[in-house]
Amino acid sequence: MPRRSPFKIPRVPEMTVRRLSVYTRCLQQLEEDGVKTISSQELAERFSLNSAQVRKDLAYFGEFGVRGIGYYVSGLKAELQRLLGLDREWQVALVGFGNLGSALYHYKGFARQGFRIAAIFDDDPAKLGTTPDGVPILPLRDLPKESKVRNLQLAIMAVPAESAQPVTETLVAAGIKAILNFAPGRLRAPKDVRFKSVDLAIELETLSFYLVQGLRT
Amino acid sequence: MPRRSPFKIPRVPEMTVRRLSVYTRCLQQLEEDGVKTISSQELAERFSLNSAQVRKDLAYFGEFGVRGIGYYVSGLKAELQRLLGLDREWQVALVGFGNLGSALYHYKGFARQGFRIAAIFDDDPAKLGTTPDGVPILPLRDLPKESKVRNLQLAIMAVPAESAQPVTETLVAAGIKAILNFAPGRLRAPKDVRFKSVDLAIELETLSFYLVQGLRT
Repeated sequence: MPRRSPFKIPRVPEMTVRRLSVYTRCLQQLEEDGVKTISSQELAERFSLNSAQVRKDLAYFGEFGVRGIGYYVSGLKAELQRLLGLDREWQVALVGFGNLGSALYHYKGFARQGFRIAAIFDDDPAKLGTTPDGVPILPLRDLPKESKVRNLQLAIMAVPAESAQPVTETLVAAGIKAILNFAPGRLRAPKDVRFKSVDLAIELETLSFYLVQGLRT
Repeated sequence: MPRRSPFKIPRVPEMTVRRLSVYTRCLQQLEEDGVKTISSQELAERFSLNSAQVRKDLAYFGEFGVRGIGYYVSGLKAELQRLLGLDREWQVALVGFGNLGSALYHYKGFARQGFRIAAIFDDDPAKLGTTPDGVPILPLRDLPKESKVRNLQLAIMAVPAESAQPVTETLVAAGIKAILNFAPGRLRAPKDVRFKSVDLAIELETLSFYLVQGLRT
């Protein structure tokens, strides 16, 4: 069992949280491969991580390593899942059911981690109804009521740029405390709401960076 | 002008490259707001960055700050864009034209950064043809020929999980050196190919982490 401080977890950088997700996936793979224990060095080598970084990231949350043994794969995985809130099911609102919204709805990775899209909101009357899996597609004005009834805690926003700010405000007014946004542009949300914009171009830029560096060498 | 080392740029961590993209966007906003110079402290405060991290990340590439002034916003932005390969247009292949592929095709953020989807590949005969913008939708077997004719350098893979490994091999055989993958599962690519998988669940996990921490306090 990890020794954990009785005090509140200190402010954790978002990059550390991202890496916890990555570590959880690595540990999942190790578990599937039948590995029981692993040192931070082996973990780092196997998945091209930085072993000092692994230790530093985990140190925010307690002392997980056991001297002479390393980490217990299943135990550490479970602990990280608990920290990330992956030991429960989250009810997620999806706003916007165009191409991107549909793709996100069918994206298997969310449900696998416990994120269940429980309701879809779109103002196109042609889209209202129910998905083949029984998830309702509702007008946006139903959001305040539905967020309470369905205990919606997170929202994924896949709406056009011009709708993004008003939809954000609707979500905030409905009591949603965490929003994952795919629309471009600058958006404002209150400080007590976790608002995160996904910029898919950044993913391509890490590739072009290495291509350019490769071209130069 | 930055003083740059005449030597090869050392191996740069991917997280640093990601942050260069973020800094570029911050500098873009500052430029739009008419800001000419900024210190690393001001930059960090304004965009919730870590000023020591900013300096460390930039130090991989040279000395950009000017004592008593800070950074020249436009100059640093241009320099980072050059490093990231954003001072040119890249010809991108999109493989898979289902919901996600269509959404990615219409995603404005790619073209804004110089990533032009020049050809789409899909093996569904019903989809073959041309988009309203004139981009051809071709069968996958045309990839080797088209990648040369159209100078395709990067690929975005939005195919079902079961097609992902064979499509990866087709892309590699066609000489594509950088692949951005949206399919789940473990995939193999040769060492000289930059292969990057996007895991959208990670984005939600950073949100659930902070929700859980908030619930605990």
